[in-house]
Amino acid sequence: MPFLSGTPPFRPERPVFALILGNTLLSTVPGVSGAGMSPEKTVLTPVLDSELITHGVIRSRKWKPNTPTGCPTPAVITRAMTSLLGLLPLFVNAGLTGQPVVPCFDMYGEPGRDPREGDAVPRARDLYTRGEQLGRFLSQSSDFLLLGECVPGGTTTALCVLRGLGIPARVSSSFVDNPVALKEAICARVRERIKAEGATDPLDIIRIGGDPMLAVAAGMASSFQGDTVLAGGTQMLAVAAVLRALGRKVPAVVTTVYVRDDPSAGFASMAEAIGARVFYVDPGFGALGHAGLARYCIGEVKEGIGAGGAMFLARIMGRSEEEIRETILSTAAGY
Amino acid sequence: MPFLSGTPPFRPERPVFALILGNTLLSTVPGVSGAGMSPEKTVLTPVLDSELITHGVIRSRKWKPNTPTGCPTPAVITRAMTSLLGLLPLFVNAGLTGQPVVPCFDMYGEPGRDPREGDAVPRARDLYTRGEQLGRFLSQSSDFLLLGECVPGGTTTALCVLRGLGIPARVSSSFVDNPVALKEAICARVRERIKAEGATDPLDIIRIGGDPMLAVAAGMASSFQGDTVLAGGTQMLAVAAVLRALGRKVPAVVTTVYVRDDPSAGFASMAEAIGARVFYVDPGFGALGHAGLARYCIGEVKEGIGAGGAMFLARIMGRSEEEIRETILSTAAGY
Repeated sequence: MPFLSGTPPFRPERPVFALILGNTLLSTVPGVSGAGMSPEKTVLTPVLDSELITHGVIRSRKWKPNTPTGCPTPAVITRAMTSLLGLLPLFVNAGLTGQPVVPCFDMYGEPGRDPREGDAVPRARDLYTRGEQLGRFLSQSSDFLLLGECVPGGTTTALCVLRGLGIPARVSSSFVDNPVALKEAICARVRERIKAEGATDPLDIIRIGGDPMLAVAAGMASSFQGDTVLAGGTQMLAVAAVLRALGRKVPAVVTTVYVRDDPSAGFASMAEAIGARVFYVDPGFGALGHAGLARYCIGEVKEGIGAGGAMFLARIMGRSEEEIRETILSTAAGY
Repeated sequence: MPFLSGTPPFRPERPVFALILGNTLLSTVPGVSGAGMSPEKTVLTPVLDSELITHGVIRSRKWKPNTPTGCPTPAVITRAMTSLLGLLPLFVNAGLTGQPVVPCFDMYGEPGRDPREGDAVPRARDLYTRGEQLGRFLSQSSDFLLLGECVPGGTTTALCVLRGLGIPARVSSSFVDNPVALKEAICARVRERIKAEGATDPLDIIRIGGDPMLAVAAGMASSFQGDTVLAGGTQMLAVAAVLRALGRKVPAVVTTVYVRDDPSAGFASMAEAIGARVFYVDPGFGALGHAGLARYCIGEVKEGIGAGGAMFLARIMGRSEEEIRETILSTAAGY
């Protein structure tokens, strides 16, 4: 397996790596998200991941950056790659339940609400506009935008939005066993609400059933002037689908082979339906000799907080596959 | 009078214009600040100014961007110049009492407290570190940093910090009649507290008697890799003095001739004592035919939210004096 599928045409000189943090209260519904030690604690993951990426350690709480089975958070991979590149990411607060411990470009949004009970993102349109403002600001100095995200529970809101846009979507999960039935039940309720309103505008669909990240990411990608790559799994396909429905250029998407190979999601055919070019990163975690990272190969975690995109960026900026793998291994071994 | 004093050596290719917003509760003490219709309302000025600069209008409140005498807020000048240049500024929230209506890079600080009653900025050191992080982030893509601010009441905290650093400072004011006695009384209390603690570290002095902007600005200027220019009056001299005391390079300062000519402040001799190179902008508001702008010449407002620096930037980026004056006049006429 090659490290990178295809031959990316990008030659970033002044890249910006933006990581959008957001919450949806759906992640607190038992069974929806595996991104945290317990359903209530999933909402903390974006704040802890951004602390880990920035400082290399978590000091704000007692916390192990691993799943209960010892699988490292993808923030470890992102941290390894940003250290290797000497690149400082830009954290964007799209709407979090708590205050971050690292400074963020703040959209002054709110966490997404449970879409079964009412509008999930009442200010979706405003967040999109603010995302556009940031994309324009970044265009002034940067020539390449890599856009990642961390939204626990976000694959469920992505499913709601993809289906709302008429795409026969299935979505991935950070669980080995994707809680498909629960996601489908939530999604069915959202479809009822979309139908009742007759909503077709993608920003209305985010308002009804999405999360704040989706609105901000679509805005940023829509206005950024240079090359844009969406870094993530099915959540970033939802962003691509929103952009297509808005009549905007659909950026390329980069993710890991662990997302591609998730039989419950059907990533490649969804990407094709949306018209998004996809690059897959295969870091070969099975052969690294790290039991936790090897669990990515059996479908645990798979991707998150721009990890696939971070490896992709390191590669297109000239780092060797060996350097990349060694840096991830030595970083993961430190936790 | 030339439009620009001296010959600035800067040739920005990818400039970033950062405007740091902050509050000190000192501005609510009657008589301290003229930046607002009433002492209580002064705290809103940074939020309203940033809205005006971003959108060209204030929609969030009923508000006239003029002093009671019809003198336009300096945000009108900054708006005119950023429009002329097609440049989007970066707003930085160093610590505000209310939520901004435009997205900001947020340091998650707090408004400065009344330094007569206890530490003004308990987390000054942390804010400095966060400012450094932002300066490093911006260095990745930009080659020139213009740093402005909006902190109502900030000349008083600047006075406290300058004196705390041993500089025989006097400070300017947005009032025609500078409330010197009141500022001196506040400053005397702060000096007692500095003395009682034996504080000499500039970040301790900001903690005791400064405001959140001073810490963030010093951090940003300290870590930014390209040319840095501080845009503002005596508040930016306080930032320069902090940098000198920290052993960092002292950036150039740009301000208006209206600040230079304030007899109550003694700007030029203070700048010399600090070792800061100064550029003065003389936009000739007396001859524009706008009664409100002409009031700048009799010492009202004088400067604020990077207005002097914005005119400076327009000039060094090749705009003619006539273009600059005409754009300011037509922008001010629209309010």
